[in-house]
Amino acid sequence: MNEYALLHRMDSEYCYPSSESDLTIRLRCAKGDLAEVWLCYESKYVIGTSQKKVPMKKVFSGELFDYFSVTLHETDTRLAYVFYLYDGKDYRFYSEEGLSETYDYTLGFYNFFQYPYINPADVIRDVPWMHEARFYQIFVDRFAMGDRKKDTSYIHLKSGEIPNPKSFAGGDLKGITEKLDYIASLGINALYLTPVFRSVSNHKYDISDYYRIDEQFGTSEDLKELVDACHAKGMHILLDAVFNHCSEDMPQFRDVKEKGKASKFYDWFVINGDRPDPEKLNYEVFAFCDYMPKLNTSNPEVADFLTGVATHYIREYGIDGWRLDVSDEVSHEFWRTFRKAVKAEKADAVIIGENWHNASNYLRGDQYDSIMNYSFTKCCLDFFARKTLNADRTAQRLNDLLARNNNVVNDLMLNLLDSHDTHRFFSEVGENPDTFRNALYLLYFFPGVPCIFYGTELAIPGGYDPDCRRCMDWDEAEKIEATDLFQDLQRLTEIRKTHNFRTENVRIYGENDLLVVEYEEGEDTISLVINNTDEEKTCPYGRVKGNDRLVSICKGARA
Amino acid sequence: MNEYALLHRMDSEYCYPSSESDLTIRLRCAKGDLAEVWLCYESKYVIGTSQKKVPMKKVFSGELFDYFSVTLHETDTRLAYVFYLYDGKDYRFYSEEGLSETYDYTLGFYNFFQYPYINPADVIRDVPWMHEARFYQIFVDRFAMGDRKKDTSYIHLKSGEIPNPKSFAGGDLKGITEKLDYIASLGINALYLTPVFRSVSNHKYDISDYYRIDEQFGTSEDLKELVDACHAKGMHILLDAVFNHCSEDMPQFRDVKEKGKASKFYDWFVINGDRPDPEKLNYEVFAFCDYMPKLNTSNPEVADFLTGVATHYIREYGIDGWRLDVSDEVSHEFWRTFRKAVKAEKADAVIIGENWHNASNYLRGDQYDSIMNYSFTKCCLDFFARKTLNADRTAQRLNDLLARNNNVVNDLMLNLLDSHDTHRFFSEVGENPDTFRNALYLLYFFPGVPCIFYGTELAIPGGYDPDCRRCMDWDEAEKIEATDLFQDLQRLTEIRKTHNFRTENVRIYGENDLLVVEYEEGEDTISLVINNTDEEKTCPYGRVKGNDRLVSICKGARA
Repeated sequence: MNEYALLHRMDSEYCYPSSESDLTIRLRCAKGDLAEVWLCYESKYVIGTSQKKVPMKKVFSGELFDYFSVTLHETDTRLAYVFYLYDGKDYRFYSEEGLSETYDYTLGFYNFFQYPYINPADVIRDVPWMHEARFYQIFVDRFAMGDRKKDTSYIHLKSGEIPNPKSFAGGDLKGITEKLDYIASLGINALYLTPVFRSVSNHKYDISDYYRIDEQFGTSEDLKELVDACHAKGMHILLDAVFNHCSEDMPQFRDVKEKGKASKFYDWFVINGDRPDPEKLNYEVFAFCDYMPKLNTSNPEVADFLTGVATHYIREYGIDGWRLDVSDEVSHEFWRTFRKAVKAEKADAVIIGENWHNASNYLRGDQYDSIMNYSFTKCCLDFFARKTLNADRTAQRLNDLLARNNNVVNDLMLNLLDSHDTHRFFSEVGENPDTFRNALYLLYFFPGVPCIFYGTELAIPGGYDPDCRRCMDWDEAEKIEATDLFQDLQRLTEIRKTHNFRTENVRIYGENDLLVVEYEEGEDTISLVINNTDEEKTCPYGRVKGNDRLVSICKGARA
Repeated sequence: MNEYALLHRMDSEYCYPSSESDLTIRLRCAKGDLAEVWLCYESKYVIGTSQKKVPMKKVFSGELFDYFSVTLHETDTRLAYVFYLYDGKDYRFYSEEGLSETYDYTLGFYNFFQYPYINPADVIRDVPWMHEARFYQIFVDRFAMGDRKKDTSYIHLKSGEIPNPKSFAGGDLKGITEKLDYIASLGINALYLTPVFRSVSNHKYDISDYYRIDEQFGTSEDLKELVDACHAKGMHILLDAVFNHCSEDMPQFRDVKEKGKASKFYDWFVINGDRPDPEKLNYEVFAFCDYMPKLNTSNPEVADFLTGVATHYIREYGIDGWRLDVSDEVSHEFWRTFRKAVKAEKADAVIIGENWHNASNYLRGDQYDSIMNYSFTKCCLDFFARKTLNADRTAQRLNDLLARNNNVVNDLMLNLLDSHDTHRFFSEVGENPDTFRNALYLLYFFPGVPCIFYGTELAIPGGYDPDCRRCMDWDEAEKIEATDLFQDLQRLTEIRKTHNFRTENVRIYGENDLLVVEYEEGEDTISLVINNTDEEKTCPYGRVKGNDRLVSICKGARA
């Protein structure tokens, strides 16, 4: 028995409540090491008198580790537990003190594992509408211009041109509203817009007025109209909360620049000295951008201001949640305050962080609901683009990713192939349409919520920022219904609509160089088989040509 | 290289800020596996251009694992890092994606480890006075009677008698005030009292009025007098916050019993039905005690009420913090609210939870400062009482305990051999005075804060509750200065006063059946060597007789 590999952490993704009576418990062990795992548990106040022993199921199989899991449904949730392990040779107990041949329950209160009580406030809450969502990310300036009366003198970038960091293409909110039918035709029912508030840049991640829609993008009426139009079509819409930093043009920062320490906004920022000096960069900023001063969210006034912004757009415009820019550089403390305010305003508003790494400490029910799943992106790049992972190892990596978080969160993860902050995935796979389509299928089949970047449906290419932010090609979009990608999106949408892809039902594995994603639905199985090689391969689901894929729906148990 | 054993979790005890510029990073590996470990790090915004490579030091050596650590002091705290490992044969990088022979920093933003930014709100804060503290836990009813005018008709237990669950001995607050000189003579400078609020029981863990001192224990003036007298002597004093549950006699619960769902306090409790029925036990309680209804701390009214109690005793009486009863069954959410209120009232008030297990999720700077360290207790029991662990394995277990938490917390842990909830340690070691003294030395030498249960200094025996709660023997106490234990406490107090025992300087190991606890202080070393066997043993510090101990202060480096 490989004791080094065993891992269980109480009150973590290894032990979490998903309702007032449901507690899921996981154990990690070395891959292939354990043949059977049981959970021995009972109320901690009758320890040693009434253990139940339930088998745990192997749910994920990663690169080095297997993960076993069981979900308990108990009314007395004050649970003490130990694991009972069998490796084909020996039986062992596993408690807070490690492995032992026997376990003395009479001393158990010192070393059992426990979940002491499910408090409603600590339950990891779901956002049910997210399970039905298929997202489309729009970089507003590059999508569509709807306001034909506006001053267009700032616009210099035309469709088909390569953007530079200062390009403006004229996209606006009205343009999005006009294109909602087109977007819906792709099977999309949720939007996430990059920032729309007043800012001098094209990306608007440097905001000078959080209460004003940038005039290039339109008016507050335009936003209201867009949100209402979305809702009328059954679409949800998220805005981008840039709360880590603002623009040097924000009046509060200008006040500090003018008055220094005498400004009542001095503590809104993090300044080393009497007043901010862009030359010396004596204040904290995003990256090294002197025009993006960091907001001091540890200052309660700033926290109040920002949560005020967050609730304002929910209350006054009815938006359905927020994507949080650079959220990993803002404090846990702030996100807890933010969550309380947002959820009080709209209980099913969704909160999606931008954390590129394991963010399990932000995803414990008290901060975000979800993150942009860039670790999934990376895995897709390694498999489809760089081909540094074969099907087997990709399956393992994807299993390890699912083991990072609890299943409530897994089912809410915003999965993406690319965004405004990466190369276009189509370019990453050398513009190979078959590989690109394979990736799109995986995106839609992976547990969580798929999100495509505008233009994905047209296989728009592009390198790193700003090249990934080219204009939407509306001439091509006119002809989209004739494309394979459109057919794929129709099919994938139909599949997502008629099946309920949940982490608790998924099995992801490699078989004969094929990547298989398989969901059990009662007796039935729906599966995706991806061939990422150039040669035809065979698996029990059938033959799959090189760089092709197969979706199979088996009624009844698999042969 | 044993990859199964490698463990690093971002934003946990493996990576935590202890100030706005100090970040400690740890890595776990298989015991003896790695010869050298380096941390390669830099600002995440210049990734791949400016890595610093610093060696990490092996700080803990547990049963299966070694733990390496380094503390960084940086002004730019937006840190990306990977580990570089050498096992005597191979060099490997270790990132979020596991081991690799090479590491591509240009793709690092997808898979480096990171601490994205030290926000002041997320720093794990110290409680400096705790480092000087030597605690004494008093079970009030059994300690000393000071009020000679009170109605004594409720008192039936006399000194020397064995208590039963309904015994009353008459101890009160005035009694403690009168005995402060005695307590101080033991080297004690901090008190923790079991509950003192109105309650019908002797232990008063079932409180009916949180704003009244129980009349058996005295008046609010008596509490004020006690707190002032403590402070005048440079002592700190903590009270016991029983916030998980109350008494059936609490007016709010009586109201619900009377009016059922019509009561405005119905949601203060967790009731399944129209009204609480002790026969059916259709409401949640502590353990299975129908007279101890659980408080619904998820109800903001209840949370407000309880934080009001907590701040009241700090503001009006000046107490120095709270010990939290059954704190693991109360929500994280509540403790976060509680902490904010308490720290706002008194920044250096200490918050000590009663969690018998790994409580690292409560000890991340946002909830408690510390817990009662019952895992330390268990280790002492296994070594000194049950002798199921030898010196080597005890040292390993103690190292593993230190690896559970960050060092800010380790240095604040309330270490104890016994309490009102355990057997007396003196009885656990078969009343062997030498073994008992050895354990006392370990208690005072272990990183954190020692806490002795009243009567420890007299080696009072006792089994489980209520036997562990016998009366203080004041006749014996008169003669205490002639005892070995008194001399030990003098010596240990002097040692704690003149040395600064911090986790970052400790080394705990077994050598030739001896348990060694060693602190480096610049060039000097202070060490405790414990012989828990019956035979004389030798180590570089000298010979130690069976069941004896040796304290050694070496000036200059150890030979």
